[in-house]
Amino acid sequence: MDTKIILTEKEIPTSWYNIQADLPEPLPPLLHPGTKEPTILPPPLFASALNEQEFSKERYIEIPDEVLEIYKLWRPTPLFRAHRLEKALGTPAHIYYKYEGVSPAGSHKLNTAVAQAYYNKKEGIKRLTTETGAGQWGSALSMGCQFIGLELKVYMVRVSYDQKPYRRILMETWGATCVPSPSEDTEIGRKILAEDPNSTGSLGIAISEAIEDAIGRDDSHYSLGSVVNHVLLHQTVVGQEAMKQLEKADAYPDIIIGCIGGGSNFAGVYLPFVKDKITGKKPDLRIINVEPQACPTVTKGPYTWDFGDVAGMAPIALMNTLGHTFVPPPVHAGGLRYHGMAPIICHLAKLGFVEAQAVYQIPTFEAAVKFARTEGILPAPEPAHAIKVVIDEAIKCKESGEKKNILLALSGHGHFDLGAYDQYLSGKLEDYEYPEEKVKEALKQLPQVPA
Amino acid sequence: MDTKIILTEKEIPTSWYNIQADLPEPLPPLLHPGTKEPTILPPPLFASALNEQEFSKERYIEIPDEVLEIYKLWRPTPLFRAHRLEKALGTPAHIYYKYEGVSPAGSHKLNTAVAQAYYNKKEGIKRLTTETGAGQWGSALSMGCQFIGLELKVYMVRVSYDQKPYRRILMETWGATCVPSPSEDTEIGRKILAEDPNSTGSLGIAISEAIEDAIGRDDSHYSLGSVVNHVLLHQTVVGQEAMKQLEKADAYPDIIIGCIGGGSNFAGVYLPFVKDKITGKKPDLRIINVEPQACPTVTKGPYTWDFGDVAGMAPIALMNTLGHTFVPPPVHAGGLRYHGMAPIICHLAKLGFVEAQAVYQIPTFEAAVKFARTEGILPAPEPAHAIKVVIDEAIKCKESGEKKNILLALSGHGHFDLGAYDQYLSGKLEDYEYPEEKVKEALKQLPQVPA
Repeated sequence: MDTKIILTEKEIPTSWYNIQADLPEPLPPLLHPGTKEPTILPPPLFASALNEQEFSKERYIEIPDEVLEIYKLWRPTPLFRAHRLEKALGTPAHIYYKYEGVSPAGSHKLNTAVAQAYYNKKEGIKRLTTETGAGQWGSALSMGCQFIGLELKVYMVRVSYDQKPYRRILMETWGATCVPSPSEDTEIGRKILAEDPNSTGSLGIAISEAIEDAIGRDDSHYSLGSVVNHVLLHQTVVGQEAMKQLEKADAYPDIIIGCIGGGSNFAGVYLPFVKDKITGKKPDLRIINVEPQACPTVTKGPYTWDFGDVAGMAPIALMNTLGHTFVPPPVHAGGLRYHGMAPIICHLAKLGFVEAQAVYQIPTFEAAVKFARTEGILPAPEPAHAIKVVIDEAIKCKESGEKKNILLALSGHGHFDLGAYDQYLSGKLEDYEYPEEKVKEALKQLPQVPA
Repeated sequence: MDTKIILTEKEIPTSWYNIQADLPEPLPPLLHPGTKEPTILPPPLFASALNEQEFSKERYIEIPDEVLEIYKLWRPTPLFRAHRLEKALGTPAHIYYKYEGVSPAGSHKLNTAVAQAYYNKKEGIKRLTTETGAGQWGSALSMGCQFIGLELKVYMVRVSYDQKPYRRILMETWGATCVPSPSEDTEIGRKILAEDPNSTGSLGIAISEAIEDAIGRDDSHYSLGSVVNHVLLHQTVVGQEAMKQLEKADAYPDIIIGCIGGGSNFAGVYLPFVKDKITGKKPDLRIINVEPQACPTVTKGPYTWDFGDVAGMAPIALMNTLGHTFVPPPVHAGGLRYHGMAPIICHLAKLGFVEAQAVYQIPTFEAAVKFARTEGILPAPEPAHAIKVVIDEAIKCKESGEKKNILLALSGHGHFDLGAYDQYLSGKLEDYEYPEEKVKEALKQLPQVPA
């Protein structure tokens, strides 16, 4: 068969798939961080259309034409059959990978960035704010805002701003304003700088600055790149394409494998398939969420109520969490260091529809290099975690002689992560055990929620 | 119409197109650098199949199956219609771009890298050597050798090795050995280091080291990434695809625009179209080779005999040249700094089938940013030179009301060139006039060739 299964632009899904229509038990509500009462996303920060999507039970939500037109710049993305990796492993398994790295921003993030910019613009908003760690989300939203016609201000964690300038430059090339956080532009930023002028910042501080900025201006909203339901919804364009592509190859996955940080990339791939599991059409389908050992939210974190953000200002969600004050070790997969997890993923894990597995950083890079040397593409460190598990499963197939279909969610390329590859190749990469004691401490800080 | 015109894997051309079959006057010979007699490429350095291709008059040369299978990892590449750029310019012109940046190595270079590795392997060679400046060619050949199963040693100009580590890491990830040049691994390297232990190297030194290494070992050959005929031949897979794609859009270009350094990318796109101009089928087709003002080989250099390399060891070719000792100013488009030009391009220019134009660096980056903000893709600095001319021509169409079809050769992405974008965006980018006096000096060093 072909190396790539491609679709035409006419075959791009015209709706997002909303898993909330098919859940056997509804999602628990979000709670207000102060009152602990059920709440929506804060209206001063989010477009009402996005808030509607957040709680909608409609099975399909139409993708606006303007968003679809922009999607066509990189969608449909290719589905590859990993012939060369299979051969190198000597496995009878068929490995497929859905590759989002062909987007100009280099990952799946653009799928929701364009959609969020669109709905905000439609409601009269002129400007978005957001935070970014290494810059993956900030750069995607920069392109999204440029193409829809919104201003964007990105608060970038100072240590990344200083050490990893490439994604900052990418944001600026697409017309966004990017400042190091803590910044002089917000009250909280000024307060932190007054206490420590050399603060290297944190994602928590950057979130607080982006929110303060958006709340303070009528023309501005805030934007999130993962975790919440509407972001996962927008990413289902990926999984629906993958399903069509596998149909063309006359295949259905036995195992779907991807990495989870906030969870939007992988949920975007598997939610359309989970439907088949819920309805009993494909009861044996395995879905493996892969996390770093350094931040094993679903494998080790309790399923409990916790704040979505470090500062305790965001809504409280029922989810697996390592505690909102938990700061994971500095693994290179910056996108996999969130303390919590998308409530949809946690709900599906609790109901037994999906499973989770944690892997170490060094074997992850070993798998990434094997992938690059057989398939060509240099994977980002985040999906490299999933590649490690794909290889493990493919080797099990070799041992058992089973010809399973494995689908990998390859969320992006690693062109801006070559420093991490260098550390691995030169034998300098460190690994990190699960920081059990730190998690225990962080779990003491959970919010008190009445039963 | 669609944003992208895509082909299936079955539509990848199965032969390369050889312009030598259709030239109204044959190409002048290569001359031996010592005897000044007609010569082939040095047999101790090049596979005989590549030497045959270098001088073949066969119109079509079959692409080996193994090469085609590897091409399928990224080929056929998409042809885009630049709807958003057209709209931003308000032009009636239709702008199409053929994008080679989807290859894992990020440019067209992989098309010849895989082919060269294949033919060398077939003739029993175990190992290739090459030089690289910023690393574009070195990284492509690293992937090519890894996939065909050859060792590769890359001599990388030390200043790039130290300042731009990303492409070095990419080479190592694909399994190549990369050393800074001058190195301790060759006689010439040791000699230069003995004289100046802090030498930052040059492309000339790196070429000399790679050649010395390959000559000294029976298992090794040397590999070139541009300029020579067989490299241009391998790149014609790009132009043949573009022609099929334009046919599907019911379009034929009025103007084809691309950048030229050694010339292989752009010739690869236009040679299949030049055929139509030679045969009189499309006499009005304009083909514009774009160069930097800092190194305007075809626009300013005389058409004369010169060495292919700085050291005067390589064969002598009849071409436009600024003199083999000419060192151009440090423009960011490292791939456009060669003193000479592919003899095929110079021959076609002399016969009047193609034209050339030189542009400045700052307006080039201005055009690149406009492109990124309308089409999403961040272009490499090299093809950004062509984008500048595409925009100029599209604006002329706006003024005249002509609905011309413009085809842009977009040879690669700029993910590893963001430092240059940063300089442009922060207003720190310098520009360079044509260094007329330096060229005059260099042209005094031309080899003496009997009439």
